[in-house]
Amino acid sequence: MSTIQDVARQAAVSVSTVSNVLNGRTDRMRPETLLRVEAAIAELQFRPNSLARQLKTGQTPLLGLLVPSIANPMYGMIARAVETFAQEQYGYRVIVGNTYREKDKEAAFLEDLLAHGVRRVVVISSLADEHHLTQAVERGMVVVSFDRRATPGEASGIDHVTPDNFEAGRLATRHLIAYGHTRLAFATVAGLTVGRSDKIRGFLAAAAEAGLQQHARVLEGGPMNEYGDAAIGEVGRELAKSAAGDPHRPTGVVAVNDMMALGFMAGLREAGLRVPHDMSVVGMDGLFLAEIANPALTTLQLPVTEMARAMVERAMSRQSHLEPAAEEQVFPFTRLIERESVGPPPVSETKVPITR
Amino acid sequence: MSTIQDVARQAAVSVSTVSNVLNGRTDRMRPETLLRVEAAIAELQFRPNSLARQLKTGQTPLLGLLVPSIANPMYGMIARAVETFAQEQYGYRVIVGNTYREKDKEAAFLEDLLAHGVRRVVVISSLADEHHLTQAVERGMVVVSFDRRATPGEASGIDHVTPDNFEAGRLATRHLIAYGHTRLAFATVAGLTVGRSDKIRGFLAAAAEAGLQQHARVLEGGPMNEYGDAAIGEVGRELAKSAAGDPHRPTGVVAVNDMMALGFMAGLREAGLRVPHDMSVVGMDGLFLAEIANPALTTLQLPVTEMARAMVERAMSRQSHLEPAAEEQVFPFTRLIERESVGPPPVSETKVPITR
Repeated sequence: MSTIQDVARQAAVSVSTVSNVLNGRTDRMRPETLLRVEAAIAELQFRPNSLARQLKTGQTPLLGLLVPSIANPMYGMIARAVETFAQEQYGYRVIVGNTYREKDKEAAFLEDLLAHGVRRVVVISSLADEHHLTQAVERGMVVVSFDRRATPGEASGIDHVTPDNFEAGRLATRHLIAYGHTRLAFATVAGLTVGRSDKIRGFLAAAAEAGLQQHARVLEGGPMNEYGDAAIGEVGRELAKSAAGDPHRPTGVVAVNDMMALGFMAGLREAGLRVPHDMSVVGMDGLFLAEIANPALTTLQLPVTEMARAMVERAMSRQSHLEPAAEEQVFPFTRLIERESVGPPPVSETKVPITR
Repeated sequence: MSTIQDVARQAAVSVSTVSNVLNGRTDRMRPETLLRVEAAIAELQFRPNSLARQLKTGQTPLLGLLVPSIANPMYGMIARAVETFAQEQYGYRVIVGNTYREKDKEAAFLEDLLAHGVRRVVVISSLADEHHLTQAVERGMVVVSFDRRATPGEASGIDHVTPDNFEAGRLATRHLIAYGHTRLAFATVAGLTVGRSDKIRGFLAAAAEAGLQQHARVLEGGPMNEYGDAAIGEVGRELAKSAAGDPHRPTGVVAVNDMMALGFMAGLREAGLRVPHDMSVVGMDGLFLAEIANPALTTLQLPVTEMARAMVERAMSRQSHLEPAAEEQVFPFTRLIERESVGPPPVSETKVPITR
């Protein structure tokens, strides 16, 4: 196997010049030098030995990515962006682990990452108990967490990058209220993660602003099966079927995310209700699937690429877990995209006198 | 950091007993011994050092997984199953790479895997040129390829696990013909991968069986944008809009996969056509999304879990790339699931005399 010395000899440059090329420090290099080094690397089939690098630094150029399930299209989108950005900007590859929101699986994944010399991880977890995450930080891991907030006043070694879930819940609900809806519901799955709680608080806050708190309900379905992917859509579908049978059913529904909304619309259709004529539905995330749904789903767009980039940058920029974590970084949902799934409430409903 | 010796001392057992526990060889162990070792492992926070293992064996317990894009829900499903099975059955973690069907990105990913000491990879590629794959085999990689066939009569170090794409194309087309469709189309994206070609051959074979080869067309959209995820649905949508404008348009469409079919149905709807009244659509894959689509999509179910398991088993069971690859393993699509997207052709169409 060729060494960096072989490459330097072949290209008639110094070892540090080869190292500069390998590390992308080529902006002040003469083009002919760069071409010569690249030709030598190709000819000798040289590849930097990450094992040697790992022995020297104790680190390996791998980033961990912990997700509930990569089969959930939302986490698939995030994972695509995280992997592509980590690779293109930092030359890091990504180890991915499905943990199904189970603490033991999350802890085992972190354990394995440590054993592999991985020292940077992006965690999509939302479990209320984050003891296993702080334990990983204490053992040398830089941890960036998605979709949960820092605990105010509590020092934490964990970096937080999160959507503004409270504001999302509020915006979606205000949109329904602006269309005249007074009987409101928030559709979610069993198990209160931090992100879900924040969305529910936003929903209730918007209802209270309009004096509708008496008419705002939280519908909780589930729990989800072991797959956690198709599952959230399936939960939405069942939830809609049971909601459809209630004579006092809501006319406007905010779904915790797009997959829930798509399943909910399917359930309403199976129960013989039309969207938006009989019930309006708003999603959150902005999946492409929302755009091609029938009816096309009104939803809040999450800036997935920007958030993925921010998470990778934070994971990579901290030299060690001993540096204090940065302030939490909160991303607003970019905008509400109006499509076809929201309309005025059914006429018979608007005649019902409302207590304000 | 604790060593295996520390654990053995603490549990008052031999090092080989600890090793047996770590490697799951506990069937002949006394329960109290097992409990004592597990308690010592927990108390000392012992973790096996994969770096040491790598130095000793030259291998690391990581499996590579190369996908066009993890944001494509189909590849997300496969990746979930591959990762979970590799982890639970073999204690392997998975390095995932998005390669967007670009040869350079695929080659760079394989290169990085070799540098990380990874010697086993599952490849979802379908690029016609597989020189970079055979090169990886020559350099010591065990490669299992999804969705392409072995070249008959050609020795290859690559293991093949593939759906029966020819049969899938034929079954879907026969289903449309059984409903009375005579003007048929196959909707796909630009770029002939092995899998896509096989499906098209099946489509044409079924048309020929029924004497309809004059009325069977291949509609090709695209190419796809850089994301390759939302993209295939978007291609289907555009393809449907242009097909809708043709007075001699097909009445029955076989889509190359479910995402294409879902996009195609969205495009028809935007063009004012109804499914299945004006046009029938069949998908392939069996995504959950097909089930909650409106109308629900008739599709062929691919046995994703079984295929993922077969790919991992093959990647893990070969001790070295020097062993000859096994025969290719071809999985039939489990079954055709009839839903709402296929019906008889429009009445005006059935009156048109057909040349048989």
